[in-house]
Amino acid sequence: MIILGIDPGFSATGFSILQKHKNQIMMLDHGFLSLASSKTLQVRIGIFHATFTEKIKQYQVTHIAIETPFLGKNVQSFLKLGYLRGILYLLAEQHNLIMHEFAPRQVKQTVTGYGAADKEQVAKVLSMLFPHIPKSLKADVTDAIAISLCGLWQSENKSL
Amino acid sequence: MIILGIDPGFSATGFSILQKHKNQIMMLDHGFLSLASSKTLQVRIGIFHATFTEKIKQYQVTHIAIETPFLGKNVQSFLKLGYLRGILYLLAEQHNLIMHEFAPRQVKQTVTGYGAADKEQVAKVLSMLFPHIPKSLKADVTDAIAISLCGLWQSENKSL
Repeated sequence: MIILGIDPGFSATGFSILQKHKNQIMMLDHGFLSLASSKTLQVRIGIFHATFTEKIKQYQVTHIAIETPFLGKNVQSFLKLGYLRGILYLLAEQHNLIMHEFAPRQVKQTVTGYGAADKEQVAKVLSMLFPHIPKSLKADVTDAIAISLCGLWQSENKSL
Repeated sequence: MIILGIDPGFSATGFSILQKHKNQIMMLDHGFLSLASSKTLQVRIGIFHATFTEKIKQYQVTHIAIETPFLGKNVQSFLKLGYLRGILYLLAEQHNLIMHEFAPRQVKQTVTGYGAADKEQVAKVLSMLFPHIPKSLKADVTDAIAISLCGLWQSENKSL
């Protein structure tokens, strides 16, 4: 099982790729993709699709995990987030990935044991699990790591 | 110039493919795609992408025209519409299509000369232009034909 956790957004998409190896979780990759607003929407969406097609192939990803979005104040941002989510569904279909979707509360609950945990509590758990990752990660990346971890643990429990 | 006009939706996506040949507009194809809700979202999005990839290749489409969506009562429908629109942006990028986007009012204005025209007025203009199409077309298809026509006429005016 190799899982891609992803927190999509045009200004920054955080991602994390984890592998379960025996009893150890290994982080294969993590980072973020920024899509310059100077480019047209179709070019940015093309880059998004190409970048994650490449990551999925490179690491032979088998699962993908995303969070359920909530409607914020900006309806246009919500619609644009839908564009990127649509691409993720397509990637899941094109590469036969099993898709997991979690409410943000469920991710926090799984990772920290507490559904209303704040970002620092989440970051603390992640830095214990992955001592080698930098402490000052972008929030989008921390979120993506938490999402991938939630997907990994959920699948384990299901297979018990 | 070969234009694909499209009115995306999970229950029915209307489409229309028009070609300008000398002074005549020819309709190459029109119809609709329904995505059965018994299938998962990722399968449906995969079918949507594959179907229109095929249409674009078959007719050597060069332009794509869509309408600007408005937020209705159902936020989840709006988000899901975003998924399909994301795929259309990707298709535009993958096949080097020029993308046109119009407000619904602009489509009606261009086709009938009146921005607040009702569906029947739009259908009347379309049946005069394309006497061979059936009178009882699905609304999604009529909308797609109007959108493709708007894209075709707008491009003509631009190139004058």
